[in-house]
Amino acid sequence: MKKHIVLLPGDGIGKEVINSAKDVLQAIAEEFNHSFSFETHEIGGAAIDQYGTPLPDSTVDACKQADAVLLGAVGGPKWDQNPSHLRPERGLLGIRKALDLYANLRPIKGFKNLLHASPLKEEVVAGSDLLIVRELTGGLYFGTPSERRDNGNAVVDTLSYTRKEIERIVDKGFQAAQQRSGHLTSVDKANVLESSKMWREVVEEKKAQYPDVVVEHLLVDAAAMKLITNPTQFDVIVTENLFGDILSDEASVLTGSIGMLPSASLREDGVGLYEPVHGSAPDIAGKGIANPAAMILSAAMMLRYSFDLNNEAKVIEDAVQSVLDSGFHTGDLQIAEGRQVGTTEMTKLIVDYI
Amino acid sequence: MKKHIVLLPGDGIGKEVINSAKDVLQAIAEEFNHSFSFETHEIGGAAIDQYGTPLPDSTVDACKQADAVLLGAVGGPKWDQNPSHLRPERGLLGIRKALDLYANLRPIKGFKNLLHASPLKEEVVAGSDLLIVRELTGGLYFGTPSERRDNGNAVVDTLSYTRKEIERIVDKGFQAAQQRSGHLTSVDKANVLESSKMWREVVEEKKAQYPDVVVEHLLVDAAAMKLITNPTQFDVIVTENLFGDILSDEASVLTGSIGMLPSASLREDGVGLYEPVHGSAPDIAGKGIANPAAMILSAAMMLRYSFDLNNEAKVIEDAVQSVLDSGFHTGDLQIAEGRQVGTTEMTKLIVDYI
Ligand SMILES: CC(C)[C@H](C(=O)O)[C@@H](O)C(=O)O
Ligand SMILES: CC(C)[C@H](C(=O)O)[C@@H](O)C(=O)O
Repeated sequence: MKKHIVLLPGDGIGKEVINSAKDVLQAIAEEFNHSFSFETHEIGGAAIDQYGTPLPDSTVDACKQADAVLLGAVGGPKWDQNPSHLRPERGLLGIRKALDLYANLRPIKGFKNLLHASPLKEEVVAGSDLLIVRELTGGLYFGTPSERRDNGNAVVDTLSYTRKEIERIVDKGFQAAQQRSGHLTSVDKANVLESSKMWREVVEEKKAQYPDVVVEHLLVDAAAMKLITNPTQFDVIVTENLFGDILSDEASVLTGSIGMLPSASLREDGVGLYEPVHGSAPDIAGKGIANPAAMILSAAMMLRYSFDLNNEAKVIEDAVQSVLDSGFHTGDLQIAEGRQVGTTEMTKLIVDYI
Repeated sequence: MKKHIVLLPGDGIGKEVINSAKDVLQAIAEEFNHSFSFETHEIGGAAIDQYGTPLPDSTVDACKQADAVLLGAVGGPKWDQNPSHLRPERGLLGIRKALDLYANLRPIKGFKNLLHASPLKEEVVAGSDLLIVRELTGGLYFGTPSERRDNGNAVVDTLSYTRKEIERIVDKGFQAAQQRSGHLTSVDKANVLESSKMWREVVEEKKAQYPDVVVEHLLVDAAAMKLITNPTQFDVIVTENLFGDILSDEASVLTGSIGMLPSASLREDGVGLYEPVHGSAPDIAGKGIANPAAMILSAAMMLRYSFDLNNEAKVIEDAVQSVLDSGFHTGDLQIAEGRQVGTTEMTKLIVDYI
């Protein structure tokens, strides 16, 4: 298989962990006889510094021609005081919209060796394994008007969805549930929002098409509670953009291993952008100690979702688990025993396993 | 002191616990030589059944003439399939708006004897004591347009605030922080929403007026994480309506005692509506086993915030703590030792202490 991949290192530890993903993908290519070509572009703060914009046209053009995109992370204190069109995260929002990456998938699964670092009691969190399917290109993030009014004495943002936009993400949620344990939780605020009422209608309409999936509706406030009190009750959660933003970040800390969590943002044809859930971690950037696992697992998601290379994805996931099982770990993981290693060594261990 | 209080029992266990609050207030009146008069009205499902609307005019009128309002809880499966204007929670949203109850205060403090029931590890949650100040009459809850478009093929909701609305709730947040540990966390999504940018500006402007308060800005997704990983870092959180809805429910399960949490919803002149955080609990309604503590503690908040009766409020709070310390508890509290009692006996114990 021949694939062309755009690498967007971004800022902070993004620049370090992106190399780990590349090394791992090259090992996979060799082992399974694929040909992956790579091309690197700037996004976020790095792009602001070099081009005066967080998302240069050259980056968008390259991504549009790629089979998939890997992104490190964006942001850092250097750009925190910039006006909003010159902030690193604008690059992220822009590329999601430019590529129409409407479906954000965030799997959250506890690693046994890491559960002790969870803020939750082990008996509450053990066994949790959920996937958040978040709508990523609509809702309050992109609705218009979003503006000051009345001489700056008032302000509005707009939560807007077309029925089609809701349908395609709800379909994605059902399909994901079919491939997993067949349980879908649709999260909305249908007791208040008109958009949530339409959302709930769409879910009800689609039910018949997926008779093998058990569907449940949950209000977003109740979902925020149940994620903590009973995380194991969830399989797939599907929800709109802002609710998904909040709930997926909430869920990401449950298992005590945010440094291990990958994510995928997909277009309808399967092209996708893959990035770790963690941020650019400016405090540890440049020190060679960042955990590359989330980035590497994001590359595995790319193989699975964009290239349909399920075996290859599995090999990467097994490699990460096995290296962890052997006691190797990066500093972020709060493991007392075993051996603490840096980004390069961790990557090499994973590559060697492959 | 002479005060007139409207009681809105609502539905489910609301009907039971409201009597507990009344008993406790009568004991306080006797003990401290106050005169509290009471008047009961319907809201929610009970009002739908009796008047065909979740919020009859007679209820609104009575509340407008009261010095304060106590509300039990609204909702239940009986009305779950109703069209949205005939759902119990419309009554709640309606009375908040009709009385201009813009500031919702939810204190969350762990009870030592109950921390074992927390989903969090005791070392994570111990010592947490926070207050969420939620804007309650603006934002996505009441913004217009909120409607279907394009022949039902699209939908919008509107997040709208006037600068004045933001200013008054931010002031409330600062004032609350002054009365507590002097730390305010303002939660927004300023990297995406225009309304959040205005929110952040207002907070920055107000800072100078409250030099004794340390302010921090936090994005809502980060707040959802930190509430779990580090709840003790918070003192007062101030945020807009929907973020406050989600975060306050999330926070309510941290300490393992949602049956103990009161809330206040205030108007600028101090008139307020007080209700437990828990819902109408249809599964245990009518059995006489509901925990009246959250309702009774809501009455204590009424004495403090609407009547400025701080001593009396403290007596109620001490009474609840002391009865709990003596080993008495209702069934919801997951306590193995001590003696399990019902609503009436629990109330009587608290009244006797007073
Ligand atoms: C950086 C920010 C705009 C972004 C979002 O809110 O979508 C981030 O929080 C995320 O979840 O990927
Ligand atoms: C019932 C519902 C409309 C209400 C809200 O969202 O405000 C409730 O969740 C609350 O927090 O009091």
